Amino acid sequence: MRIGILGAGQLGRMLALAGYPLNMKFSFFDLSGSPTAGVGDIFIDSGKCETQLDAFLDQVDIVTYEFEHLPLELTRKIESKKPLYPSSESIRVCQNRVEEKQLFTRLGIPTPEFRVVESSEELAAAAEELGCPVVAKSVTEGYDGKGQAVLKSADEAEAAWNSIGHPQLIVESFINFSRELSVIAVRSTQDEVAVYPLAENSHHQGILRTSIAPAPDLDPEFEEQAKHYISTLMSELDHIGVLTLELFETEQGLMANEMAPRVHNSGHWTMEGARCSQFENHIRAIAGLPLGCTQARSPTSMLNIIGQAGSIQDLLKLPYTHLHLYGKEERAGRKLGHINICADTYKELCQRTENTYQFLPGSPEFSCSLSKKEKQIP
Amino acid sequence: MRIGILGAGQLGRMLALAGYPLNMKFSFFDLSGSPTAGVGDIFIDSGKCETQLDAFLDQVDIVTYEFEHLPLELTRKIESKKPLYPSSESIRVCQNRVEEKQLFTRLGIPTPEFRVVESSEELAAAAEELGCPVVAKSVTEGYDGKGQAVLKSADEAEAAWNSIGHPQLIVESFINFSRELSVIAVRSTQDEVAVYPLAENSHHQGILRTSIAPAPDLDPEFEEQAKHYISTLMSELDHIGVLTLELFETEQGLMANEMAPRVHNSGHWTMEGARCSQFENHIRAIAGLPLGCTQARSPTSMLNIIGQAGSIQDLLKLPYTHLHLYGKEERAGRKLGHINICADTYKELCQRTENTYQFLPGSPEFSCSLSKKEKQIP
Repeated sequence: MRIGILGAGQLGRMLALAGYPLNMKFSFFDLSGSPTAGVGDIFIDSGKCETQLDAFLDQVDIVTYEFEHLPLELTRKIESKKPLYPSSESIRVCQNRVEEKQLFTRLGIPTPEFRVVESSEELAAAAEELGCPVVAKSVTEGYDGKGQAVLKSADEAEAAWNSIGHPQLIVESFINFSRELSVIAVRSTQDEVAVYPLAENSHHQGILRTSIAPAPDLDPEFEEQAKHYISTLMSELDHIGVLTLELFETEQGLMANEMAPRVHNSGHWTMEGARCSQFENHIRAIAGLPLGCTQARSPTSMLNIIGQAGSIQDLLKLPYTHLHLYGKEERAGRKLGHINICADTYKELCQRTENTYQFLPGSPEFSCSLSKKEKQIP
Repeated sequence: MRIGILGAGQLGRMLALAGYPLNMKFSFFDLSGSPTAGVGDIFIDSGKCETQLDAFLDQVDIVTYEFEHLPLELTRKIESKKPLYPSSESIRVCQNRVEEKQLFTRLGIPTPEFRVVESSEELAAAAEELGCPVVAKSVTEGYDGKGQAVLKSADEAEAAWNSIGHPQLIVESFINFSRELSVIAVRSTQDEVAVYPLAENSHHQGILRTSIAPAPDLDPEFEEQAKHYISTLMSELDHIGVLTLELFETEQGLMANEMAPRVHNSGHWTMEGARCSQFENHIRAIAGLPLGCTQARSPTSMLNIIGQAGSIQDLLKLPYTHLHLYGKEERAGRKLGHINICADTYKELCQRTENTYQFLPGSPEFSCSLSKKEKQIP
């Protein structure tokens, strides 16, 4: 079976690396002009004619993607020729923050209160109504903290509107959360469902820096809640493949932030940390194979390498690091790779992660619920 | 860095899959006419001109191989243009059983007594002298039990000679061994050395069926002995990359059988069973990177899939199987893939391995020192 992947970045690359041992073959359709996957045939979208897309579709049996911000028209056209997993319906909902929130609400999944605005005046009014601080986000296209602004008062509406520069924004109440979590699940064409243990995620400047899984000290009730939410979403969307749901942990319980219809950076820990990785499970799911075991092998952390790789030699010298580079040139804010670290205990994991952080140039101080707890010990 | 691999079968494929996350790129030079690696550029040796070899060499920074039965002339020619790791000296010794044995003897590594013969009459005489049973093997080219015969009496010399059909044979005393072990080690261009825990190997019809690592109930003195032997060999050969040494465990200690200057089937368990796999460590070693940790993550077994794959669905349904297929068509005696199984205890490992064996068509009954012990328990 040959699988076509829309996008040829690191997620496509890691899907292919996980799929080859299952005898899958891969072709990539690149829409960015700078494919980096490097492990299969690449077709480049010239934007002028459809020859490349047709050639790509002729070659593949099924199609998936590494990025949901795709033109819906394109995805529907693909669907008319080859099976697309997850479907264009998952893409339609997940690429639009309003659709997403409305779905959460309809399914009884708590989510921060929100308004949709189409001018700086409406933004100011929404900020007043919800009570500042509020977060304004472009309804479509934003990711990695792009297209977002925090308003501390309604006076900042015009500046925020101009900085985002998008015709429609969603404005959300600021949530007082203790940490960010994500839950990753997978559903196969055979209707089999598997859910990974939740990860705790730490961001810096809007970009994910660290995930720790299974999320330490997690209330088992919250774990069940998250699993219920994501199963409900997958079933409602008839979603095939991996789905990721980002959550806030609050005193009142979990609140849904956003979701992605694909393998996710906060699931990279599964490569060495789980029995079967999110990448392999996505391939199994869309190919109609039985799903792999989602259990954790041990407490695991994932550290993103952002902008600069630093000394690869130093990173590889540490006996507990698993390095995954993406074949990309250095550039500010760019995800160049990640490191997975496994340990027998969370304490050891925390020490190893802190130690590894020293070798990541330009990284903020390591921070997670574990490191905070460590610091409280006199 | 682009690495050239001589050979484009499963070992080359797994080297590439392990090397991409270190930002390596791969080209294969295929000498078989049926490349199956499928994860990099492939140059096919036409056997008629050197254009393909030159194009391959122009593209790569360093060269390695998945198979040591290469024309020495070719490897020396390559060495005159690009670094070849391990060197042609490692190939020269490892592709010749007499050279190998002489090296073992010179370095004080015990090995079964042997004679070299060049006719059926000499073979009969050697069998008489050593005392039957003896094993006769072609001096070069044999692998996976090919080019071998066991003689129960000197009368069988002519039949054995004809069946092997090679101008020079090595004849070895039959060793009364309790099990076969292998030790895999790696040495980098920076002179760093790392050794994996030993594996216990079970063969059927001359082909490896199962490895279990770390080898259960292994005398720590034997472990040290094996590590000493392989370190001595690597140092003597100035060997760069992975080296595998097959050993017999006897009441008198370990005896060396043969070695291979490459990643080895009995090291496939390291993919999920060790911190860093033999494939990643080979790439690290030849690229001058620090070596990865060779410790086992848990008791692990490796089962070869030979000739027929059977039901992939059934194999994937078992929650503890890690499947690695090689992209090959079914053919009697052909290695199509392998399965790694990890467990917290050897008892659990044994149960899981026996259970998985049921789904491998045409496989012999699972047999290892663990399963034999299990059977002794009433």
